[in-house]
Amino acid sequence: MTEFSEWFHNILEEAEIIDTRYPIKGMHVWLPQGFKIRKHTLNILKEILDEDHEEVLFPLLIPEDELAKEAIHVKGFESEVYWVTHGGLTELNKKFALRPTSETAMYPMFSLWVRSHTDLPMKFYQVVNTFRYETKHTRPLIRVREITTFTEAHTVHATREEADMQVKRAIEIYETFFHELGIPYTISKRPEWDKFPGADYTMAFDTLLPDGKTLQIATVHNLGQTFAKTFNITYEALEGEHEYAYQTCYGLSDRVIASIIGIHGDEAGLCLSPAVAPYQMVIVPIIFKKGGEEVLDFCRKLEEKLKGEGFRVHFDDRDIRAGKKYYEWEMRGVPLRLEVGPRDIANKKVVTVRRDNGEKEFMDFNPETFIEDITSLMEKINIDMNKKAWKSFEDEIRTVESIEEVKKTMDELGGIISFDWCGDESCGKDLEETAGVDVLGIQSESEDGKVCMNCGKPAKHVALMAKTY
Amino acid sequence: MTEFSEWFHNILEEAEIIDTRYPIKGMHVWLPQGFKIRKHTLNILKEILDEDHEEVLFPLLIPEDELAKEAIHVKGFESEVYWVTHGGLTELNKKFALRPTSETAMYPMFSLWVRSHTDLPMKFYQVVNTFRYETKHTRPLIRVREITTFTEAHTVHATREEADMQVKRAIEIYETFFHELGIPYTISKRPEWDKFPGADYTMAFDTLLPDGKTLQIATVHNLGQTFAKTFNITYEALEGEHEYAYQTCYGLSDRVIASIIGIHGDEAGLCLSPAVAPYQMVIVPIIFKKGGEEVLDFCRKLEEKLKGEGFRVHFDDRDIRAGKKYYEWEMRGVPLRLEVGPRDIANKKVVTVRRDNGEKEFMDFNPETFIEDITSLMEKINIDMNKKAWKSFEDEIRTVESIEEVKKTMDELGGIISFDWCGDESCGKDLEETAGVDVLGIQSESEDGKVCMNCGKPAKHVALMAKTY
Repeated sequence: MTEFSEWFHNILEEAEIIDTRYPIKGMHVWLPQGFKIRKHTLNILKEILDEDHEEVLFPLLIPEDELAKEAIHVKGFESEVYWVTHGGLTELNKKFALRPTSETAMYPMFSLWVRSHTDLPMKFYQVVNTFRYETKHTRPLIRVREITTFTEAHTVHATREEADMQVKRAIEIYETFFHELGIPYTISKRPEWDKFPGADYTMAFDTLLPDGKTLQIATVHNLGQTFAKTFNITYEALEGEHEYAYQTCYGLSDRVIASIIGIHGDEAGLCLSPAVAPYQMVIVPIIFKKGGEEVLDFCRKLEEKLKGEGFRVHFDDRDIRAGKKYYEWEMRGVPLRLEVGPRDIANKKVVTVRRDNGEKEFMDFNPETFIEDITSLMEKINIDMNKKAWKSFEDEIRTVESIEEVKKTMDELGGIISFDWCGDESCGKDLEETAGVDVLGIQSESEDGKVCMNCGKPAKHVALMAKTY
Repeated sequence: MTEFSEWFHNILEEAEIIDTRYPIKGMHVWLPQGFKIRKHTLNILKEILDEDHEEVLFPLLIPEDELAKEAIHVKGFESEVYWVTHGGLTELNKKFALRPTSETAMYPMFSLWVRSHTDLPMKFYQVVNTFRYETKHTRPLIRVREITTFTEAHTVHATREEADMQVKRAIEIYETFFHELGIPYTISKRPEWDKFPGADYTMAFDTLLPDGKTLQIATVHNLGQTFAKTFNITYEALEGEHEYAYQTCYGLSDRVIASIIGIHGDEAGLCLSPAVAPYQMVIVPIIFKKGGEEVLDFCRKLEEKLKGEGFRVHFDDRDIRAGKKYYEWEMRGVPLRLEVGPRDIANKKVVTVRRDNGEKEFMDFNPETFIEDITSLMEKINIDMNKKAWKSFEDEIRTVESIEEVKKTMDELGGIISFDWCGDESCGKDLEETAGVDVLGIQSESEDGKVCMNCGKPAKHVALMAKTY
């Protein structure tokens, strides 16, 4: 693959995912093809969340005084909040923030909603745009100033244990979601200095892009009682006493789409899994001098049959060379191509060509079994793409035992490094600076007798580090 | 019905549609029940639009200079645009508007997208939040400062005729949509002084709320070449010459949900059509001392069966009086209640009670025909609600022939008045002032010999007027 960043920008344009020419830096236009990928991806997530969350929608604007209430939280965001100061030609009495995230929009309302222990747990989510005045270099879908697809869940619980359980449940939700998408990840507990502003602790999902840098694709925060105390979210417990609630929140963004594109793509362009592809199949007629009408007619019926079964299918009947069609649909990542020529019809066959591995097969066109065969092929593609992505991901996680090795590995290979760590903030920050990496977080406890790779003190944790986006 | 405004506010709260306590005037929270009604409503619209429009998503923020490019347009909006002036602690070089509508966000991009006549027509839509710094009294879903459900379509065409045709097509789209929802409307051509800023002409849909005032629920604008010239949207025609494109745009907002609630509701609360109801049916077990388990078991199976058929159904097995359940679900507008008691099971019957007209029936519980019977009952409810709404709407349209009659009718009855009009702006504005109404617009040509109701000159148009929201 050519340089990833260039490839990524090109494919966004060529496959008509995003138009980056909008006249504000870091804010982009979702084009029809991109919008469809986004929609199918969101539908998968919503189906999972809808099982036990309620979808809601809060206002975009947050009054200055609400945003400022939680001191640690506002400190984490104040340098990157956009401010609305005027309505028409009038200066507003109180300025409004464009939400950078919605804790301070939601929690004043939660304070009104939560009354009794019987109201709990409460679990909500919303899909919204959020804004960050990023000073770092922006990149479409990866680091933007308008995050268009922020999917944030917020839960309220009666006890610390229930909040801890919800963190585990949220992790399962995202595992299921990324499994459907075939996106591999590590899960780690972010170091103290990198947790969500206001959280007790943050669990994070990171994946790896082809340039060897990790991308944070989801986070789950246990908020403890911090916000409940700030926003006075209390409930009446069994014995009538008022207790502060416990909260969690978790979310993900447009970066999920960046991962789908970056991880599965190749030199030929996009490679989409049937789960999110705008078209899951394209039918290409192979027409010779004779029998053209018969082929077109067969293809039309095939399209109709597949559509009737709920597949997203396109019949490409343009009068251009088949090769040009192959090229285009491969670039756009359509998971399966069905080719039909006169000989195939005579032999009662359809040629299937997989986008993910190029495999070409002759599938029996038996009305009894065809839909079943196509369905299993689709499932197989999903599974294979998942496996392939996990395989290369795992190959890029390396255990390293000295700081020299870290530098060498990072320079030559990139990827994720697993190491033993004392857990001290000063040591971690020193390591980040020396090796030019970020500590992603803690995965597990160190084995007895292990020492910290950086400082030599007894190790507490097995941790991960990487160059990050 | 009690005073409409009070009823409306109460039902938004009681049925958990919207929470109006958010700490910014005119900006509200969609609660889970409201969000579901909104979602089902949007899905109906999207299904219609998706037939020949592509869904896209443009940024919220519009640079000041783009917004200012179209002089008439910006004049129409400048007094009510929210401005972002700061990013973090830094003042921005160029301020950004929160979109009041998206012409000036989209059309600079259209200028890049439209190249040749073969690119046309282009038809896009998006569902977004838009902002208006309203100085008038705000009302939830009716006049708000954050419109959360702005569904705007924008099309580009090669000729004036095609743009005119698209206006007709857009009107058909909205007719289909409102038909599905059972919302009655008039369609009229807005007077010159009330058209969309920048449009050649505006066609508008108005419905009527129970307080006798009309509510604009959708508009369709023929933009001619005004924006194409401002934003340089040109295409290469057949002979290679560059021509300015023709454009239309059309949209609707949260007001559709206000109409659903206001038009079908009654003293008992919400009354939802099966098309948009969060729950289309609620199953209430009628339990006596004996046979309780059998009833619960039957209800559970019934719920499962109906869910399996794709119905949105809820089994209310709470241990409270059936009467309390009736009251609650009626207030929330569930279209159909299924009651099941031991005697019904013995008789192989289910009791159905319609929300819209209170009709109670014993439906045979025959596994062969039950789903079909329920499906037709659902359809019948939809049709009957539509008919009923249209009937009362048409009763409120009155033809009036003198200005005294206008005042009397408006004071005593409200509603919509049809009248003959000369069509002159000065006469129209005089009429608006004298009678305290708004001219909605023109419906058709006057018959020969008719005179203007206001000024006595020969009449040109049959027009509509009303007190409006």
